Amino acid sequence: MKKNIDPYPFLRACFRQPTPYTPVWLMRQAGRYMKEYRALRKKFSFLEMCKNPQLAAEVTLQPLLKFQVDAAIIFSDILIPLEPMGVQFDFAKGEGPVFHRPIRDEKDVERLKVIEPEEEIPFLMEAIRLVRKELEGKVPLIGFSGGPFTLASYIIEGGHSQNYLNTKRMMYQAPLTWDLLMKKISEVLVRYLNAQVRAGAQALQLFDSWVGCLSPADYEEFVLPYLRKIFKGVDKAVPMIHFGTSTSALLSLMKKAGGDVIGLDWRVNLDEAWQRLGPQVGIQGNLDPAVLFGPIQFIRKEVKRILHQAAGRPGHIFNLGHGILPETPEEHVVALVDMVHEFSSKIGKGEGKD
Amino acid sequence: MKKNIDPYPFLRACFRQPTPYTPVWLMRQAGRYMKEYRALRKKFSFLEMCKNPQLAAEVTLQPLLKFQVDAAIIFSDILIPLEPMGVQFDFAKGEGPVFHRPIRDEKDVERLKVIEPEEEIPFLMEAIRLVRKELEGKVPLIGFSGGPFTLASYIIEGGHSQNYLNTKRMMYQAPLTWDLLMKKISEVLVRYLNAQVRAGAQALQLFDSWVGCLSPADYEEFVLPYLRKIFKGVDKAVPMIHFGTSTSALLSLMKKAGGDVIGLDWRVNLDEAWQRLGPQVGIQGNLDPAVLFGPIQFIRKEVKRILHQAAGRPGHIFNLGHGILPETPEEHVVALVDMVHEFSSKIGKGEGKD
Repeated sequence: MKKNIDPYPFLRACFRQPTPYTPVWLMRQAGRYMKEYRALRKKFSFLEMCKNPQLAAEVTLQPLLKFQVDAAIIFSDILIPLEPMGVQFDFAKGEGPVFHRPIRDEKDVERLKVIEPEEEIPFLMEAIRLVRKELEGKVPLIGFSGGPFTLASYIIEGGHSQNYLNTKRMMYQAPLTWDLLMKKISEVLVRYLNAQVRAGAQALQLFDSWVGCLSPADYEEFVLPYLRKIFKGVDKAVPMIHFGTSTSALLSLMKKAGGDVIGLDWRVNLDEAWQRLGPQVGIQGNLDPAVLFGPIQFIRKEVKRILHQAAGRPGHIFNLGHGILPETPEEHVVALVDMVHEFSSKIGKGEGKD
Repeated sequence: MKKNIDPYPFLRACFRQPTPYTPVWLMRQAGRYMKEYRALRKKFSFLEMCKNPQLAAEVTLQPLLKFQVDAAIIFSDILIPLEPMGVQFDFAKGEGPVFHRPIRDEKDVERLKVIEPEEEIPFLMEAIRLVRKELEGKVPLIGFSGGPFTLASYIIEGGHSQNYLNTKRMMYQAPLTWDLLMKKISEVLVRYLNAQVRAGAQALQLFDSWVGCLSPADYEEFVLPYLRKIFKGVDKAVPMIHFGTSTSALLSLMKKAGGDVIGLDWRVNLDEAWQRLGPQVGIQGNLDPAVLFGPIQFIRKEVKRILHQAAGRPGHIFNLGHGILPETPEEHVVALVDMVHEFSSKIGKGEGKD
C-alpha cells in the first residue's frame, strides 16, 4: 500500500525511505533528567502535568529547545486511559504506579468501561493540538499508547511485577476472562490512537513494554490476536512503531502482529534483529540507556557500533532501547543526538538502496 | 575430548548421549513450595539452613522423596561465597538479599578477599558429602555457583536491581575496577566449583541469571572473558550447565564462553535456540515456572510442546526456565515430572541419533 511521502526524515525513515542522516528521538525525552522538567515537577504532580494540556504541551516541547531531536512525543503516560475505564491508580514515590484494587476476576473485568477517549481524555487531544501549533511544522509529533498486554499486566498485578504471576494465572486459568479483558483494552486503544491522529499526531508508538516476560507460544496465543486487531483498526495514514523489551525471540511474531517499524531494546544486535525481521519493516533503537552514563568516548563507540549495524539502510530510527533514565547527564544527551546526525550522514545515508 | 560415560540419564544427557527418557530436575526444587521445607523454615532462617550441613542435606533430599526427579541439587545460595570474601548481607523479609555496604569503588574491590572455599565454606562441602552418602547412588548430585556478572551485580547494586545502573556505570566508567572485581570473583568461583567436585558433586551449574540485562556487545567485552576462565579452570570430569535468563540474543556468546549444556529460560523456543547453538552442546529447559499454576491440561500441552521441540535429540534435560515459584502447587510438580518421563519415552528417546 502506498503511504503519504513526507519531507521529515523521521517520517521518511518510518516508511523506509532514504534520509540525509539517521533521525533520532529518545523515549521519555521529556522527563526527569531535564532541569526544566524537574522545576515544573516541584509545582505539580506527574498526573497533574499529564492532565493539564498547557503543562503537557510545555513539557513536550522542553527537549526540543535543547536537543536537535527529529521528533516530539506527546507528554503523557501509558496508564492514562485506565482511569476513565474504571481503574484508579496513584504514583507512589519512587515506586511506580500502584493500583488500589487490582483486576482479578470476571466481575472486575465486566465492570471495566469501554470509553470514548475524545470525551474522557480531552486533555490529551488538546495537548496534541497545542503542541502541533507551537511546533509550527518543525518536527513531527508522535502520539502513543501502552500495549494491551502491558496495560493488562499493570491492572492485574497492581503495579510493576517481577514474575507476572497473576497475569499469567488469568491467562492460563481463566482464558475467557483474559479474552474479555484484552478485547476491552484493545477496543479502547484503537479509539484512543485514532483520536490522537485526529487531534494531530503524525506517527504513533505502541509501548508493549512487558511482553518480553512471555514465551513465544504464550505471546502467540494470548497477545498477538489482540495486537493484530489494534494495528488493523488504526488509521493507516500515520506510521506505527511497535515497541517492546526483551523481545529478541518474539520479533517475527511482533512483525506478524503489525507495525511499520519495530522498536528494539539493546538486548539484541540491531543487524541480527533486522535480518530476522526482513526488509519489510523499519527498525527503531537500540542504545542501552545506561550507556549515557559512560564517558563520551564510550558513548561514541556504542553509537558507531549501532549505526554500522544499521549500515545506512533506509528505515533506521535511532533511539534508546527503553526510556531515558532519570539521572542521565543532559550534556551527554546533547552529544548523543549530535553524534547520531554526524556519523550517520558520513555513513552515506540517503545513498542507501531502497 | 572424551568424558566419563555414566549410567545416569541426567549425566548421559549432559554429554548428549541417548537416554530412555528425558531426564528432569527443577531449579529450586528444594524450596518454599514444599510443605516439609516450610516446616523446617519455621525453626531456622534461610542462611542457618544453608550453613548447617545436616539441615542443608535434609532439604536437598526433600524433593527426592516426593518427585521422581533425575538429579539432586545441593541446597545453598549463590551468594554464599560473598560473605567470606568480605561482603555482608541479609535476607530482608520478602525482599530478597540486602547488602549493607555495596561495593562501588576501587578501594571496596581491593578489600575483597580471594578465599579458599574449602576452609571458608566447609559446611557446603560437608553437606555435599552427606547428601552423596544418603543418596546411595540413586541419582547424581549437582553443585553450583552464581555467575560472575550476577554476583558482581548483587554486591554493586546492593540487592536486586531493575536497571543495573551502578553495575554498568562501573563497567563503563571504571573498567579497571570492574576487571579487578571480575578477576577476584572468577578466581573464587573456580576454586569454589572445584572444591564442590572434590567433595562429591557430579555435575555443576553456573547461574549467571542476570546477564540478560546486557547488550551482546557489553556481554562480549565485560563478561565473556571471565566466564571463559571459569569454564577452563573447572575440573573437566564433571559436566557443566551454563544458565542465564533473557539470553536469547546471547546464546552464541554463551556457548563461546563454555559449558556442556546451555540452560534456557522460556523466552525463546527451545528448537530455535538449539539450532542457533548447534549440536555440540546440550540444552536444559525451558518451561515457564508460571505454567505450573495453570490447569493440568495446560501444563500437559506446554510439556508436549517443549518435548516436541527437543524432538528426541540426545542432550535435552527438562527443567523450568528459572526457579520454581514459592506458591507452586506440589501436586502439579508431581504431575509435571511424571509427564516428562511418560511423554518423552513415547517420543522415542534413546533411538535418537547421536
